[in-house]
Amino acid sequence: MKRLSKNRIFGGWHERYSHQSTSTQTEMVFAIYLPPQIGEGQKVPVLYFLSGLTCTDENFSTKAGAQQYAAKYGLALVIPDTSPRGKEVADDEAYDLGQGAGFYLNASQAPWAEHYRMYDYIVDELPKLIEAHFPVTEERSIFGHSMGGHGALQIALKNPNRYASVSAFAPIVNPIDVPWGKKAFTAYLGEDKTAWAAYDSVQLLGHAQNVCPVLIDQGLSDSFYPEQLQPEIFEEKAEKKGIPICLNLREGYDHSYYFIASFVEQHIVFHAKYLGLL
Amino acid sequence: MKRLSKNRIFGGWHERYSHQSTSTQTEMVFAIYLPPQIGEGQKVPVLYFLSGLTCTDENFSTKAGAQQYAAKYGLALVIPDTSPRGKEVADDEAYDLGQGAGFYLNASQAPWAEHYRMYDYIVDELPKLIEAHFPVTEERSIFGHSMGGHGALQIALKNPNRYASVSAFAPIVNPIDVPWGKKAFTAYLGEDKTAWAAYDSVQLLGHAQNVCPVLIDQGLSDSFYPEQLQPEIFEEKAEKKGIPICLNLREGYDHSYYFIASFVEQHIVFHAKYLGLL
Repeated sequence: MKRLSKNRIFGGWHERYSHQSTSTQTEMVFAIYLPPQIGEGQKVPVLYFLSGLTCTDENFSTKAGAQQYAAKYGLALVIPDTSPRGKEVADDEAYDLGQGAGFYLNASQAPWAEHYRMYDYIVDELPKLIEAHFPVTEERSIFGHSMGGHGALQIALKNPNRYASVSAFAPIVNPIDVPWGKKAFTAYLGEDKTAWAAYDSVQLLGHAQNVCPVLIDQGLSDSFYPEQLQPEIFEEKAEKKGIPICLNLREGYDHSYYFIASFVEQHIVFHAKYLGLL
Repeated sequence: MKRLSKNRIFGGWHERYSHQSTSTQTEMVFAIYLPPQIGEGQKVPVLYFLSGLTCTDENFSTKAGAQQYAAKYGLALVIPDTSPRGKEVADDEAYDLGQGAGFYLNASQAPWAEHYRMYDYIVDELPKLIEAHFPVTEERSIFGHSMGGHGALQIALKNPNRYASVSAFAPIVNPIDVPWGKKAFTAYLGEDKTAWAAYDSVQLLGHAQNVCPVLIDQGLSDSFYPEQLQPEIFEEKAEKKGIPICLNLREGYDHSYYFIASFVEQHIVFHAKYLGLL
């Protein structure tokens, strides 16, 4: 693991690392924010943030203003990249497939299957690495934006014992039914749609026995709503199963980090509560 | 004036505009954050932010997290560009001269004199435009970062009746004595150093009769400190004149927007106080 940078912010440290990933067989970069509490010898829980299409670890790190609340409530933030990257890694010219668009799944189809194993990376490899190298506990929560909201929800739904809570800004909840998801799943998982359901949050919710607390925010002026983003379908399925989730529809807000910044404190407070920090 | 974008953030609106500038004779872009209070029919005072080398209006807008506090305390933020731009505008390959490096002065030397008139733009033209088109009062404060800290200080020192308060993150306080300033002033103002003093905050402070309240923050791990950034010289001159200023030296903080984000609330509270909002 190689440290790429270290910046002080809100009394803690924002650091970037690269490491050779066994999941993706590429060099991966992630960012971690270590709040001031670790300087006092405390171990803190970890909140993972999964970013959307085209992003790296840097978008959320520089634009969301989240470190302030991680410092206030005493948790670490971990912000991974959105796909494997490099000259040897398959790619596509479109912004919504290939590098920057890993969709947090394990691909089964050529040419993607070799490196596109973001599901294993996020669920298993990265937490092991983080918990071995930083002063953190094994308590985890997860949130994300857009494609990363899809990532956070489907990961938390399949691993209810690994995450205390999950939240999402403008998530893709039903990728099997919307253009972004259909395109990516066809490429990464093939034409057989039976494989798709394992990564579809609405489908997963239908089968789930045990669901951690869920918070979703959606801007009503988001240009991808409701064509790609249909959180009401997730809410409806949850209601049918008697699972309480919180969905906030936000008048005037769009898909940008200005929207995320406006509500990131509420999301961090939500996770802090279930991580036992409040 | 043409609106380029409009995003909701923290209950208010972050907007970008372009307009034909009479000062620079180019199309200029600025951003304005209008806090939620204007929706209630209130007029609010304006806090101008001048950015550093290489920046446009977007760096501060997306990375500083300032809108949150502008909303909380009820002021508008105006974030101009750092120079004239365009194919017809003189430029230099270096990052610290030409486009993105206007130094908030009126150039007197060819080829710069034609368009590089950022002093007039910031002090006169832009406030007139803002006050004519938006629900704001004529109360103004000003702050900035690095080259923009130099801009804010020298402008406030020369116009004590136009600004209620001034603050700076890591400002160039004595451009006539440091490499960035010497290079830029030689190009824009010529070899005759008598013209330079009009844009040097330490020199201006020496002659000032009437100085508005001043706050400066400087990170001690800033890689440009103390070669380019020497706030202690400004503080020393102020002390000699019996002018109270506040200089905070911040252990571990660098020159990045992570530093600005960490202390931007304190700066906005400082200005809110002198703008009569607290």
